[in-house]
Amino acid sequence: MGLFPHKIDFFEIFDKALANLLKASTILVDLMKNYEDIEKKTKAIYDCEHEGDILTHEIMKELNKTFLTPIDREDIHALAARIDDVLDLIWSGTDRMSVYMITKPTVAAISISEDLLLTAEMLQKALNSLRAKQYSHVQEYCIEINRLENRIDRKFRDALGTLVNETNDPIFIIKWKDVYQHLEDASDKCEDIANILEAIVLKNA
Amino acid sequence: MGLFPHKIDFFEIFDKALANLLKASTILVDLMKNYEDIEKKTKAIYDCEHEGDILTHEIMKELNKTFLTPIDREDIHALAARIDDVLDLIWSGTDRMSVYMITKPTVAAISISEDLLLTAEMLQKALNSLRAKQYSHVQEYCIEINRLENRIDRKFRDALGTLVNETNDPIFIIKWKDVYQHLEDASDKCEDIANILEAIVLKNA
Amino acid sequence: MGLFPHKIDFFEIFDKALANLLKASTILVDLMKNYEDIEKKTKAIYDCEHEGDILTHEIMKELNKTFLTPIDREDIHALAARIDDVLDLIWSGTDRMSVYMITKPTVAAISISEDLLLTAEMLQKALNSLRAKQYSHVQEYCIEINRLENRIDRKFRDALGTLVNETNDPIFIIKWKDVYQHLEDASDKCEDIANILEAIVLKNA
Repeated sequence: MGLFPHKIDFFEIFDKALANLLKASTILVDLMKNYEDIEKKTKAIYDCEHEGDILTHEIMKELNKTFLTPIDREDIHALAARIDDVLDLIWSGTDRMSVYMITKPTVAAISISEDLLLTAEMLQKALNSLRAKQYSHVQEYCIEINRLENRIDRKFRDALGTLVNETNDPIFIIKWKDVYQHLEDASDKCEDIANILEAIVLKNA
Repeated sequence: MGLFPHKIDFFEIFDKALANLLKASTILVDLMKNYEDIEKKTKAIYDCEHEGDILTHEIMKELNKTFLTPIDREDIHALAARIDDVLDLIWSGTDRMSVYMITKPTVAAISISEDLLLTAEMLQKALNSLRAKQYSHVQEYCIEINRLENRIDRKFRDALGTLVNETNDPIFIIKWKDVYQHLEDASDKCEDIANILEAIVLKNA
Repeated sequence: MGLFPHKIDFFEIFDKALANLLKASTILVDLMKNYEDIEKKTKAIYDCEHEGDILTHEIMKELNKTFLTPIDREDIHALAARIDDVLDLIWSGTDRMSVYMITKPTVAAISISEDLLLTAEMLQKALNSLRAKQYSHVQEYCIEINRLENRIDRKFRDALGTLVNETNDPIFIIKWKDVYQHLEDASDKCEDIANILEAIVLKNA
């Protein structure tokens, strides 16, 4: 640590990280709704995941060099790690579709992806509100993210029910259960991000 | 933070949280052993899960407002999060049984649920001992919880073996593997709670 | 805390923990490549897992008694927990092979195990370099571990593709998907360890 502590705008990096997540979620919805140019779209999501890795690494590196941070270091660390998790899960979920040679997305997969995109939009709004110190807005967006997570959870369980009770092709079930699980896990990690943002607000209120 | 720091009895909230977990585990055993009024019992577990969400939120909110805590804040945070996880897993495990239209619990599911109930009882005793500063008792209960977790783990793997080697209905295997996994994960999270309690004891010894 | 704060060499315990992980990984490769004396080899991995439990417990106990630590306590805690996770996953992965009465490892399982062994070797080198304060070497080994994790990830997804698209025995798929998942998760936890080591270096640079 030098005489002049290193300064860094974490909000700016998180801004980039969430814009990147929004981009990946947008491509995910497009992939699900228009299941063509699959390789190109999956590659574009992979690029987002890779960009996310670079941003996470940047955040972690700066964090370890910075003495004073605008928000608690463990919160910065957790935020960066969770955003990275969401991107990983979106990427590997779509990758599974290629690996399993899936020929057509299910109605549930499209619908869950659309809710993931809405969630990513809310996360971006929540972060912007945190930056602007509009704490009550952060809380409202976080409540909305929780609501979306519950909705995705219900869609996931209904989709499992449909799979298991209306399909008698076990390999089809195995494939889709795996893809759904990735999307549901991505949604869970988004809720974790909302919880961290809410905790930051409470500490600063 | 005002002039008079906010005071809160975390033990009291954790007491409620563990009583709630014990209630959910009791209903779980009843559901497994007497597989009737399924909808009503599953709904009762859902209510516990929801009550748990409220308690967790309360703990997190108080934690962020409180400067001095009887035990380390990260331990309070981790305890609350893990108790919440156990309830989520018990709830979603039983929910899967409805989603998959399971008609009859297996012997293994009953047996694992009974051990989960025993674990919940031990957790409550361990917390009470911690509150009473009877640290050696906490450690004894935690050893017992570890023992129960190992037993559940063995029952889980034996149940998987039975499923995979004695059933030739892959969809039946997929359904039960998923339900068992939820119960096993709940047991793992109980062990995490015991580990946190043990660490608190060591720090205060 | 007495007058003379308790002193403990954490590096020495981590040294033992990683030697133990290396031993387990070596037996894993031997088990996969020479699938005979299965019970004996699986038992030997179990013994490593058990030895790991004892070492983790020792680290956690010392950590809670020690005031001054050479590296941040949360890093020591996370390192110990993650090494324990890897051993648990290697053990339960091989245990699943017995439970599922698997008669012959797949080419992918052998290949992933070999990469896990390479990863364990790199982890040991990274820790030794950290102890010797050769920080640039730590970073190089961590990059190598990340590279290995990516390779295992690709092998895992290719193995899933082979399973699902070239096998029409769903129960075979269920068994191997589960075993592969354990090995892949072990690899993920190794990457977590590398990330912690990298963070320690950044904080000390």
